[in-house]
Amino acid sequence: MTVDVKRNEDQRPVLHFTPQKGFMNDPNGLVYSNGIWHLYYQLDDRSLVAGHPEWGHATSNDLLSWRWHKKAIMAPSDHEAIWSGCCVVDRNNTSGQFDESASPDDRIVAIFTIHTQGHQTQNVALSSDGGYTFTQYKHNPVLDIGWAHFRDPKVLWHEPSNQWVMVVAKCHQFKVGFYGSPDLIHWHHLSDFEGSGVRGYQYEMPNLVQVPWDNDSDRKRWVLFLSIGPGAPLGGSFTQYFLGDFDGTTFTSSDNYLRTADLGKDWYAAQTWFDSPDGAVYGIGWASNWQYCNRVPAERYRSAMSLPRKFTVREVSLNVATKSLSLISRPIDLDNARLHTDETAMVYTNGSAKDYPSIQVIYERRLQSGSGAFEFKLKIRSGTPAARVSVDIANRSGHSIGLNFLVEVEGMFVSLDRGGTRTGSSWDHPLFDDKVCMWVPNTQSVYDVHVILDAFVCELFAIDGAYAFTNTFFLQGGVVSTFTVSQDAPITEVFDVYELCSLAPAK
Amino acid sequence: MTVDVKRNEDQRPVLHFTPQKGFMNDPNGLVYSNGIWHLYYQLDDRSLVAGHPEWGHATSNDLLSWRWHKKAIMAPSDHEAIWSGCCVVDRNNTSGQFDESASPDDRIVAIFTIHTQGHQTQNVALSSDGGYTFTQYKHNPVLDIGWAHFRDPKVLWHEPSNQWVMVVAKCHQFKVGFYGSPDLIHWHHLSDFEGSGVRGYQYEMPNLVQVPWDNDSDRKRWVLFLSIGPGAPLGGSFTQYFLGDFDGTTFTSSDNYLRTADLGKDWYAAQTWFDSPDGAVYGIGWASNWQYCNRVPAERYRSAMSLPRKFTVREVSLNVATKSLSLISRPIDLDNARLHTDETAMVYTNGSAKDYPSIQVIYERRLQSGSGAFEFKLKIRSGTPAARVSVDIANRSGHSIGLNFLVEVEGMFVSLDRGGTRTGSSWDHPLFDDKVCMWVPNTQSVYDVHVILDAFVCELFAIDGAYAFTNTFFLQGGVVSTFTVSQDAPITEVFDVYELCSLAPAK
Repeated sequence: MTVDVKRNEDQRPVLHFTPQKGFMNDPNGLVYSNGIWHLYYQLDDRSLVAGHPEWGHATSNDLLSWRWHKKAIMAPSDHEAIWSGCCVVDRNNTSGQFDESASPDDRIVAIFTIHTQGHQTQNVALSSDGGYTFTQYKHNPVLDIGWAHFRDPKVLWHEPSNQWVMVVAKCHQFKVGFYGSPDLIHWHHLSDFEGSGVRGYQYEMPNLVQVPWDNDSDRKRWVLFLSIGPGAPLGGSFTQYFLGDFDGTTFTSSDNYLRTADLGKDWYAAQTWFDSPDGAVYGIGWASNWQYCNRVPAERYRSAMSLPRKFTVREVSLNVATKSLSLISRPIDLDNARLHTDETAMVYTNGSAKDYPSIQVIYERRLQSGSGAFEFKLKIRSGTPAARVSVDIANRSGHSIGLNFLVEVEGMFVSLDRGGTRTGSSWDHPLFDDKVCMWVPNTQSVYDVHVILDAFVCELFAIDGAYAFTNTFFLQGGVVSTFTVSQDAPITEVFDVYELCSLAPAK
Repeated sequence: MTVDVKRNEDQRPVLHFTPQKGFMNDPNGLVYSNGIWHLYYQLDDRSLVAGHPEWGHATSNDLLSWRWHKKAIMAPSDHEAIWSGCCVVDRNNTSGQFDESASPDDRIVAIFTIHTQGHQTQNVALSSDGGYTFTQYKHNPVLDIGWAHFRDPKVLWHEPSNQWVMVVAKCHQFKVGFYGSPDLIHWHHLSDFEGSGVRGYQYEMPNLVQVPWDNDSDRKRWVLFLSIGPGAPLGGSFTQYFLGDFDGTTFTSSDNYLRTADLGKDWYAAQTWFDSPDGAVYGIGWASNWQYCNRVPAERYRSAMSLPRKFTVREVSLNVATKSLSLISRPIDLDNARLHTDETAMVYTNGSAKDYPSIQVIYERRLQSGSGAFEFKLKIRSGTPAARVSVDIANRSGHSIGLNFLVEVEGMFVSLDRGGTRTGSSWDHPLFDDKVCMWVPNTQSVYDVHVILDAFVCELFAIDGAYAFTNTFFLQGGVVSTFTVSQDAPITEVFDVYELCSLAPAK
C-alpha cells in the first residue's frame, strides 16, 4: 500500500539534480566532453513509480546547475525498456560507426541494457552530435549470454592492454563480469570477479575506475563500485566498493573487508564520469533507496541525485592501532552557490565540560534566501565521551529534523532524526526509518563535519571526506529556514554557515 | 546526556533472563554439567550503567527458568575488573588443579580477562563444586602479551589434536588469536585469524564451535562467532560469523562474505554452551546494543539475555540462482511455557488480492494471563508484491509497537516500529532507532515467521530459523496485552498464538 503526501514544486532542490517529471533512479551514461558534463538517468516520465525506464538527459557546465534535455534513448516498444548503462567518447572511431563529419569529441557511444521479460542484453547507441541524439546500433545486442539478470554495463578505455573494458553485473550469481573489446561492438569474456562483503539479493551497477591518492594524483588505485540491494547493511540498497588491482583481464581485491561508499540510506547506483577536464574522478549517486523510493512524498517527480563528488583514496584510522585505505568522497566546490554576505564563523572555547550546566543553545539562525539550501562546517572537539551537539533544522511551520553528534571514546555517532511527529508529516511508512545513524572513528583531537542541506536531501561528510552519509527527509510545510545549535558540553569549536542559492543552468 | 524513564519491576520478562539488579552485558562461562545449565554474565551490581564488571551467576534445568546465585567471580580490587570469558569442565583434571574429592563433572575451570587501565590478560579460576564458587589460580595471569585490548577467551577441547584451544580477540588489530594448551594453564600461540566482512571499531567475543547440519547431526561445520562494535551494519554492535575449517592450528574461512548471526539491533556477544546433554549446540546473546544500552529505561536492572538458541547450518536461498550455507537459529522449545488452553489456529484462504478492498483487521485478541509474554507463528503467502500484513501489539494504556511484513519480489521486508508517539514513551534518544528493518529472501511459496514477545524483548525468526531479528522496545504503561492483525491482501495463511507464562526456577 502506498500512502502519498503531495510535494510542492517550490520544494525542489536548488543544487541537487531532479528530473522535470516522472520517476528517476540510476545515473547513467556519465560522460564529459566538449566542456559539457552529461548526466543521463533512468526515467519513467509517465509515472511516479518505477516501471518502464528510458534515458533522461541533462547537461551542466559546473556540476551544480543543470539543463534538462529531451530523452536521449527511448524504448523501441512498450515491452522493452532501456535500463542502465554508460557512455564513452570514441574519439578514435574504434567502433567504425562515425564518419569524418563528426568531430572526435562529439563521438559518443552509449552502452546499456535492454530489458525484456526474462531477458537482458547489452546494446549500443551512437551519437554524432556530442550526446544529444542517439541512434541504436543496427546489429544490437552486442552482448547476450541468454540471462534474465545481466545488466548495467560500464565501460572504460584500458590503455595498458589497448582495449575497451566492460564491467557488467551477473546479478543473481553475485559476480561482476569483465569483458574486453577493440571496438565497443565485439566483446569477449575476460574474467568474473566474485566479491566479498555483502551479497543481499543481487548485484547491480558495477563501476571500475582508477582513483588517485589524496595529495598525490600520480599514484592511483583501482576502485570497483558495486551496488547491492535489497539486503544492505543499513536496510534496502547501498553502494559497496572494492580496492584492488586490474591487469587488463582480472580484478583482484586487496582484501575482503566490507567497504561502504556512503553510510546513509540514500546513495545508490553510483557511477563515475568518463573523463574529466582535470583528470580527477567525479561521480554521483541516486539519493534514494529501493526500500521506499516508490512510496515517499512526490507530486510531479520522484527523487534527486546526490551532489557530484570528487573521489580519492587515503589511509583512514579505524582505531589507534589500525589504518585502512579508504575511498574519500568530497562534494564538488559549492563556492559559486554561496551567498557570501551571509558567511559566518564562530569559535567556542569558553568553559570546561565539568562547569557546563546542561544543554545550552549556542547558535540560532533564520536563513534569508528562502532557497531551503545551506551548508555548515562544524568542528567538534573529541575527548568528552557522552557529550552531544544537536542541530535542529526547521521550516516556517516549525517542523524539523535533528542532527545529533554524540562523542564516544575514539569515535562519534552521527544520528539523523528524520521522522515522527517532529517532521509534521502526515506521511509515514514502516519502511522509512525515522532515525539513521553512522559511526565515525577518530583518533584525532577534532571531528570535522561538513553538511549540505538542500530541500529534502541532507549530505554529510566527516573526517575530511572519509565518511559520507546521505539521507532524504520529508517535512510538512515547506523547505527548511531556521536552525538551532545546542550542546551539553563546550565541544563545538567552529561553526561556519553558508546559505546556498540556485545558479543559472548551462546553455 | 542520559535521560531515563523508570521501568517497573512488573515489566520484567518471564522467560528471558534478567539480572537481579545492576547492569548486565555479555553472557560468560556458559557450561552444562551435572544436568545444570550455568549462565554467568558481565555484571556491575553497583550501577545501572557499564562500569566495573564481575561475573554474575544463574542456573537452569530447562533454559527457560533461571535461579540467581551469588556472584561467581569477583574483582580482587576496584582497579581490576573481571571481563568476559568462558568455562570448561576439566573432567580429566588436565589442569592438575583438582584433587580426587572433586567429582569429574564438578571440575569447572573459568578462563577470563582481567582488565586494568591499559592492560588486559587471560586468567583462570577454579571451581570444585560444579561452578558455584571459584578460586583464582595462584599464578595468574596464564596469558599476557602486554596488550591493552586482548580479551574474551573462549576455550574448547579439540579432540583430533588432543589439546585445549582458546580463541581470544586481538581487538584493535582485527584478529582472532588461536592458542593451544595441554592443561588450561600453559598456552602457546597457534595462529591468528584475520576476518573479512565488517571491522568497525574492534573485535570482541570470539566463539569457535562445531555446528551440525540441519537434519544431519553427524555432519558438522566449524563456526566462528565474532562480535563487533561500534560500526555494525545496522548501527552500534552486532554478531558476525564465519563458516570454515579448523585443523587444530588454523581456522580457514570458506569464503569472505559478511554473515550476520542476527539481523536485529539487540543480539550481541553471543556465546555457546560448553557441552550439552544431546550433543547439540546451544547459545545465547545479550539482548542490547552498545549504541544505547546505558541509556534505555531502567530501574533496578538493565538489559536481558535473548532466549537460548539451538544452532545448526543449512543451505539457504539468497535468490533463485544462489544458495548459501547459513547459520540456522531456533529458539529453544517453549512448549512447557505455553498456556495450552489459549491455543488458536486460523487459516485464511478467502478472496484474491484483486478483490481485496483495503486494509482489513483479520484478528484481534486480548491476552488473558497478564504475563506480557506470548508467541505467534505466521505463514504469509508470497507472490503478491507490495502486499502487507501488520501486527499491532499494545498494552493496557493503548501504547503499542508495530510489526510489518511487506512482500516484495522474491523477498519480504520485516519492519519493527518501536518508537515515536505510538509507544507513549517520554523516553527518546537520538541513538535509539525507532524503526528497524530486515530483508528476508524467499523463493518458496510461503514465508514462515515465528515471533516471541516477552516484556521488552521481541525475537523474530523467519524461514525456519534462517533469519533471526532480535530487538528491544520500551512502552510506557505496562507490558503488552492485546494485538491486532490486519492485511491489505489475503496473504495470511496461518496465524497461531500461544500465551506464555513463567516457570518455576530450578532448585
